[in-house]
Amino acid sequence: MERIVECVPNYSEGNNKETIEKIVDCFRGKEGVKLLDYSSDKDHNRTVVTLVGEPEKVKDAVIASVKVALEKIDLRSHKGEHPRMGATDVIPFIPIKNFTIEESVALSKEVGTEIGKLGIPVFLYERSATATHRENLANIRKGQFEGLKEKLKLEEWQSDFGPKAPHESFGAVAVGARMPLVAFNVNLNTSDITIADAIAKKVRHIGGGLRYVKGMGVYLKERNIVQVSMNLTDYTKTSIYRALETVRFEAKRYGISIIGTEIIGLVPQKALIDSVEYYMGIENFSIDQILENKLAE
Amino acid sequence: MERIVECVPNYSEGNNKETIEKIVDCFRGKEGVKLLDYSSDKDHNRTVVTLVGEPEKVKDAVIASVKVALEKIDLRSHKGEHPRMGATDVIPFIPIKNFTIEESVALSKEVGTEIGKLGIPVFLYERSATATHRENLANIRKGQFEGLKEKLKLEEWQSDFGPKAPHESFGAVAVGARMPLVAFNVNLNTSDITIADAIAKKVRHIGGGLRYVKGMGVYLKERNIVQVSMNLTDYTKTSIYRALETVRFEAKRYGISIIGTEIIGLVPQKALIDSVEYYMGIENFSIDQILENKLAE
Repeated sequence: MERIVECVPNYSEGNNKETIEKIVDCFRGKEGVKLLDYSSDKDHNRTVVTLVGEPEKVKDAVIASVKVALEKIDLRSHKGEHPRMGATDVIPFIPIKNFTIEESVALSKEVGTEIGKLGIPVFLYERSATATHRENLANIRKGQFEGLKEKLKLEEWQSDFGPKAPHESFGAVAVGARMPLVAFNVNLNTSDITIADAIAKKVRHIGGGLRYVKGMGVYLKERNIVQVSMNLTDYTKTSIYRALETVRFEAKRYGISIIGTEIIGLVPQKALIDSVEYYMGIENFSIDQILENKLAE
Repeated sequence: MERIVECVPNYSEGNNKETIEKIVDCFRGKEGVKLLDYSSDKDHNRTVVTLVGEPEKVKDAVIASVKVALEKIDLRSHKGEHPRMGATDVIPFIPIKNFTIEESVALSKEVGTEIGKLGIPVFLYERSATATHRENLANIRKGQFEGLKEKLKLEEWQSDFGPKAPHESFGAVAVGARMPLVAFNVNLNTSDITIADAIAKKVRHIGGGLRYVKGMGVYLKERNIVQVSMNLTDYTKTSIYRALETVRFEAKRYGISIIGTEIIGLVPQKALIDSVEYYMGIENFSIDQILENKLAE
């Protein structure tokens, strides 16, 4: 595949296997689409699908899956621990290869337009948001399905596409583009959670820290240590090493050292290569020099 | 491709385009074989081909190319600056993916057996060598084509496959397996070549240094600095970071610092990931967590 976009749509059904399989079937055996993973949580009553593929093919498959959700899921009788406002609740597009964040935003708007035509209100969020207060998904989803009717009447919560009132059974959906997340944790040689919290507050964006870092302190019971648990929301702007070195110098004031780090889940190759270039001082390196990339050409 | 081996055969023809193309044609448009690069040097009168592919397919293609060299190249009239002993001079196999160094050794012996059947003496070298004094290619090739007849009479230079006398026009060939090389240079904040030489001698294997490091000092005229120029001959045993940190602590005794590093040409992904794991202290990382690897599955 020349151009690759990732999509991680969330559906408000975690129990009914028939419905779940019918949704996932939209991504199986389709040319130009690769289903990477899907998992359902019964308590959350929610299914999360991860797929990658050519942008146009991913678009078609996702719209097909929204039609299945429209047909099969009724939010009026939906119960689950996870906040939700729609049968398909959120559809993020993530640029992976030869596809920019700007192109991902454009793709999210195309998909939003099509979903709007189905009679479903669409909120653009994250990088696709049409106003600052609409960037954060939690803000959009506040009030959930049950509060949608009143929320959509407010000037600042008009839908970006589709009707100005919720779909009776589907509700509404958030569609947007974001960069791949890197989940990066830094373990400290202390069990004092107040120190991890204090460092997290310094390193994260809202605390005056790095632009693309979210973070919090976490206590690891099994090891009796604490960690600064971070999400890097744009590794091309805030590299992993910058988060690590910032934690290191903030920890110093408490006389605390770093005893290890963790990368949770998937990480783009470039995110790690940036950091090895930094630590080894490699001059003029290109990721085309990586043998596996050459082979994949 | 599930299993991948790389092969970098060298041919003693760098001028005759017809012969060169006929050799390279053995690797073009063949299923399971990918021609990555080839380059001819007129002064060396030599062509180096780089290909990758499924081991069995690479084997067949390489043997076909040896038959072309046997037909088209006559060492009796060959002149060139590069040392050589055969029409195909050397055939190294390098494990790349789901293929071990041991399997590469086995493959080199299969190829050697087949070439032997063509009436060409074969020396196994590097990891495939049948005795320590036959590991180094320079030792095997010493005396070149012109000295082969006498050399092959010696007990310690018997061929591993094929006849006990050189092929009249082809000569002999070295076939073997080796790990991918990583060409890694460390730049120092001095223009004193004696310091780079002294450090290179300490870090390299023959000087009592790291097992899989070859190295020498080099003066960079343009920048008026020196560098320790290294070949890492098995990055799975001697990681890049170990070479770098060894240079760093050896440089310290001269009050010299590292101002940068270079990686020349291709480098396996794992070699860089090992180093980023070290510098960032990443616990329990698997290269399957790299998004691009997941996509390539």
